Amino acid sequence: MFSKKYLANAIRAISIDSVQLANSGHPGAPMGMADIAEILWRFFLNHNPKNPLWHNRDRFILSNGHSSILLYSLLHLTGYNLNISDLKNFRQLNSKTPGHPEIGYTPGVETTTGPLGQGISIAVGMAIAERTLGLYFNRDKYKIVDHYTWVFAGDGCLMEGVSHEVCSLAGTLCLEKLILLYDKNNISIDGNTDNWFSEDVKKRFESYHWHVIDNINGHDSESIFNAIKQAKKIKKKPVIIIFNTIIGFGSPNKSGTSSAHGAPLGEKEVILSKKKLNWKYPPFEIPDFIYSEWDATKKGKLLEDSWNNIFKKYQKKYPKLASEYIRRMQNKLPENWIDINKNLIKILNKSKQSISTRQASKNIIEYFGPVVLELIGGSADLSPSNLTKWSGSKSINKYVLGNYINYGVREFGMTSIANGISQYGGFIPYTSTFLIFSEYARNAVRMAALMKTRQILIYTHDSIGLGEDGPTHQPIEQLSSLRLTPNMSVWRPADTLETAISWKFSIERKNGPTALVLSRQNLSFINRTNDQIKNINKGGYILRDSEKKLNIILISTGSELKLVLLAYKELKKLGYSIRVVSMPSTDVFDSQDLDYKNFVLPPKIKNRLIVEASMKDYWYKYSGLNGKIIGMKTFGESAPSDDLFKKFGFTVKNIVKKSIRLINN
Amino acid sequence: MFSKKYLANAIRAISIDSVQLANSGHPGAPMGMADIAEILWRFFLNHNPKNPLWHNRDRFILSNGHSSILLYSLLHLTGYNLNISDLKNFRQLNSKTPGHPEIGYTPGVETTTGPLGQGISIAVGMAIAERTLGLYFNRDKYKIVDHYTWVFAGDGCLMEGVSHEVCSLAGTLCLEKLILLYDKNNISIDGNTDNWFSEDVKKRFESYHWHVIDNINGHDSESIFNAIKQAKKIKKKPVIIIFNTIIGFGSPNKSGTSSAHGAPLGEKEVILSKKKLNWKYPPFEIPDFIYSEWDATKKGKLLEDSWNNIFKKYQKKYPKLASEYIRRMQNKLPENWIDINKNLIKILNKSKQSISTRQASKNIIEYFGPVVLELIGGSADLSPSNLTKWSGSKSINKYVLGNYINYGVREFGMTSIANGISQYGGFIPYTSTFLIFSEYARNAVRMAALMKTRQILIYTHDSIGLGEDGPTHQPIEQLSSLRLTPNMSVWRPADTLETAISWKFSIERKNGPTALVLSRQNLSFINRTNDQIKNINKGGYILRDSEKKLNIILISTGSELKLVLLAYKELKKLGYSIRVVSMPSTDVFDSQDLDYKNFVLPPKIKNRLIVEASMKDYWYKYSGLNGKIIGMKTFGESAPSDDLFKKFGFTVKNIVKKSIRLINN
Repeated sequence: MFSKKYLANAIRAISIDSVQLANSGHPGAPMGMADIAEILWRFFLNHNPKNPLWHNRDRFILSNGHSSILLYSLLHLTGYNLNISDLKNFRQLNSKTPGHPEIGYTPGVETTTGPLGQGISIAVGMAIAERTLGLYFNRDKYKIVDHYTWVFAGDGCLMEGVSHEVCSLAGTLCLEKLILLYDKNNISIDGNTDNWFSEDVKKRFESYHWHVIDNINGHDSESIFNAIKQAKKIKKKPVIIIFNTIIGFGSPNKSGTSSAHGAPLGEKEVILSKKKLNWKYPPFEIPDFIYSEWDATKKGKLLEDSWNNIFKKYQKKYPKLASEYIRRMQNKLPENWIDINKNLIKILNKSKQSISTRQASKNIIEYFGPVVLELIGGSADLSPSNLTKWSGSKSINKYVLGNYINYGVREFGMTSIANGISQYGGFIPYTSTFLIFSEYARNAVRMAALMKTRQILIYTHDSIGLGEDGPTHQPIEQLSSLRLTPNMSVWRPADTLETAISWKFSIERKNGPTALVLSRQNLSFINRTNDQIKNINKGGYILRDSEKKLNIILISTGSELKLVLLAYKELKKLGYSIRVVSMPSTDVFDSQDLDYKNFVLPPKIKNRLIVEASMKDYWYKYSGLNGKIIGMKTFGESAPSDDLFKKFGFTVKNIVKKSIRLINN
Repeated sequence: MFSKKYLANAIRAISIDSVQLANSGHPGAPMGMADIAEILWRFFLNHNPKNPLWHNRDRFILSNGHSSILLYSLLHLTGYNLNISDLKNFRQLNSKTPGHPEIGYTPGVETTTGPLGQGISIAVGMAIAERTLGLYFNRDKYKIVDHYTWVFAGDGCLMEGVSHEVCSLAGTLCLEKLILLYDKNNISIDGNTDNWFSEDVKKRFESYHWHVIDNINGHDSESIFNAIKQAKKIKKKPVIIIFNTIIGFGSPNKSGTSSAHGAPLGEKEVILSKKKLNWKYPPFEIPDFIYSEWDATKKGKLLEDSWNNIFKKYQKKYPKLASEYIRRMQNKLPENWIDINKNLIKILNKSKQSISTRQASKNIIEYFGPVVLELIGGSADLSPSNLTKWSGSKSINKYVLGNYINYGVREFGMTSIANGISQYGGFIPYTSTFLIFSEYARNAVRMAALMKTRQILIYTHDSIGLGEDGPTHQPIEQLSSLRLTPNMSVWRPADTLETAISWKFSIERKNGPTALVLSRQNLSFINRTNDQIKNINKGGYILRDSEKKLNIILISTGSELKLVLLAYKELKKLGYSIRVVSMPSTDVFDSQDLDYKNFVLPPKIKNRLIVEASMKDYWYKYSGLNGKIIGMKTFGESAPSDDLFKKFGFTVKNIVKKSIRLINN
């Protein structure tokens, strides 16, 4: 037989020992999936351990991320820069082997997984990226983008709703070269899954139009080999292979039970398991003959060399395409990017349009679209409302090359798929839904921030200003929630110019997502000096000012800014000395140097009134306890927008009244 | 034929006219589902318009809540207290007819819907409640709890991941008397769904073990009638009927297209549609003969009278059970509730256990469980980690009477199902997962708050204190996010006593959800005076104090409080005059009268140091700009808990240092 059990047992031994040493972790799934992993990684996976970022590598995603030690074992054994001491440091501070796979920490780890269901989703994103990039760049025999995306997933991933969203879409899109290896061990943390997860997974995936290879013994190497071989041959469909496995395989007393899942086996059971597995080497010692059978560096070099040769020929024949490919895979923006932007600002500043910021955003996409070809858009079935489809948008659809994804009503799946597209490289994904439904995608949004993934999140219908759809649709706490997420950049622009700057910012930002929070309703264009236009970049800036000693600073964002500007006029007429600060992005403002911040908001000026139609509590950071905030404290109501602004105190009259009260106190 | 087209057309006419008058709304689905609605409501739905809260009514849930005007039309026509002027006020401020159905606004509206997929989920919760309550209370021929739960849903609901979660679980639980009427019109906002929603819904629901009645013409009354009749006969399975319909049925130019979905038809098209439908009455005029055919009040009275008769007999035969039933359906707590609590506090204060607050919570459930029988627990597959299963927990499982739901890895489905269970009445649901995964359920959590639904959300593993699982599992911004949600009560207790008070609070709170945010790690028991114990109820209270003029106030919550208490000792030794405030619930503290708040946090004391291992920005509300916050600004890391507390500055030394710096500034 071509496979040797001791090669899989090397994974089991490392997993058992690392978890035992760390005194925490998950041995069950690594022990259960070791045989599958051995066959996949030794016979099918195309990768080069010495260059984990080789573009045309197969992508391997461990959706059941708690089995991280399985992945670390594989990376170590096949020759990645991950040594035994890294494995001994499993789950320790500053190690390369954190508790869950984290992108950027470990060579060979493609993405961060752990929150269940999202690994599959990211893999779907990568498969979309692979196909789309291939359709764009491949030419006749030069298939420079052509590889598989492999996913490991367990019962937990398939229970999560997001797995439904993305697998249904993957089937509809006929994504081929996406192969899901499903670890069906029928055990989850609460025990045997029969009483909460009895669905017929074969039938379910057939309903999504996947090819299903069912009922494979996940501990029989030949069956595993044949199943994967068969899967690779399937065209025009994603494939799921359903492997029957035993969790904690090899542990005489814990295998097949939930006690193998998420805790060290214990010293006694470690010894018994190794005995049962006939593994006779001391902890963390792997004999050379085992290393040499696992070693993938030679094959990896050959694979990459061969691709490099093809790419060289491609470069000769299609020099422009090749340099475009390189530019995109290096995440560099087009050469004329800066000029394009300058020009856009000029145009907008001239046309002085008073339109909704979602419409402004549409106009900007229309302007960027023909130049920034790496933009790949989409909406969770709200394209005509989010205004994210521009005249050059072409929907991705089975085998059609496109630059727009109709995600269907699948916010979570959309956001997670876009994380995968972004991490794949060569694309800048923008996704869209109503701001309120960012909540459906909440953890994928957070994951984008955690993984430092560039994704542009277009959230329209940004406040009670959306009107009649009522409190289920009116965001209150969502803006704060996004702003409180580390590494998330959030913009709520007040007119076309601020919208353009926020779009520019989000395209240029390479180390994290940016949320653009946009109005449904029309907003007045605001006149600015050139300096003011430049300062929009700083997230917060002085928009109106007084040369006299200031009585009060008014701070606002988005649709409420126009009310503040009207109040400013009235207060000025009444003889008060007022500064108006527009604060489209608090996080960008916070990142400015102290001098600038103190210049815009001098600490000694304690009279500060903040006006924003969202949860007020967030704003104490800028108002302190001496200022006042006109914001929301409750949910909204169903009524026309103007009625709601009146009801909740967002009127010029109220701003003037509250300002005077604050000044006179 | 037993049905008359003009009865369905009455719905269409009202829908068209109301949307037109409001100049916003969704005519497409009401026009498409009118025929189905007519048959269901006139021939099958058991309800009493004159008593919308009659316990044994069928539950009707409009999961595609944007079709609200369909439901309002039905309520109006069948005799609920909803008149023509209410329909004319559709989507206006303070009307009984908001843009989406909102619980508490309209007689006959069972729940709030709009955010797609959650209506089905709530219906699954109601069907679980119905069966569980029936198994508990029904005796031989006295089936006092015995009715159907009907759901309308469209393509959007089925695309959402949460529909997968709850329908898979409903199938596993063999929920009968749950009938889903699926409006398959193949149109969503982005257009024809073929390119993003091509799944075989029949096969999908069969994979969940539902009974599927497929391919029914949703505009042929006899087919509709027969399909529903057949569905009612199915035992031990939920049923989905797949109705093929035409969105905007009757509109000559918009039917069958997405333009019928979410905007008024326009005056011309309204006229053309009415012509096509042969509807010749002026707007908002319904002839008496149509009203009389729709009228359900007589039948409704008969149904309720008949049930009342059965209940009277039941009361005679089972007086204790009957009064228990009444108590529970009135959401009253057991008579000895107050004594039980007093006793619990005594026990805990005596035993002085230093345990994790999740373990404390477990002990409290163990204590309440045998008395508060309406508690119905559950976990999204983390029972052994959340510690929510007590010795009296029995899992609900097909036809077994239970009080615990193994929800599987389905946080969103769980939270939404529990909303349905709570709204059904007779139960207090508590659900559990890790705090970080509250994000998967985020919008159902918000919906609980919006709908004023009692649900106890147990969120364990509440900070970086969970250790090695790393940043994907470590909450940072989740506490703030919950605290910023209107009508959400959030507790982060510091020891067993605070945990008990928070549990008591959450059971007694009838108008909204309560999140209990609990530690994984052990926390020291804190000694308190009797007054201090009483003041825990106030959300924030003075735990340590000085009689001298205060140098500083230290505020903390949960696991960090023990560090603050140690710092307090050191600072006191150094001669400083310190107050320590424990603030387990900021929202409850905020709701106290101003005198109390100013007593605990005197405005003139500006030296305030706040210590909490969560996103710091939230706390400016209490620190102002003069105080300091030791909190999180970034994501966490994978490492043992103690290493992380050190790394991020949560040490006694740092608290002492920062305090002194603040005092000396």
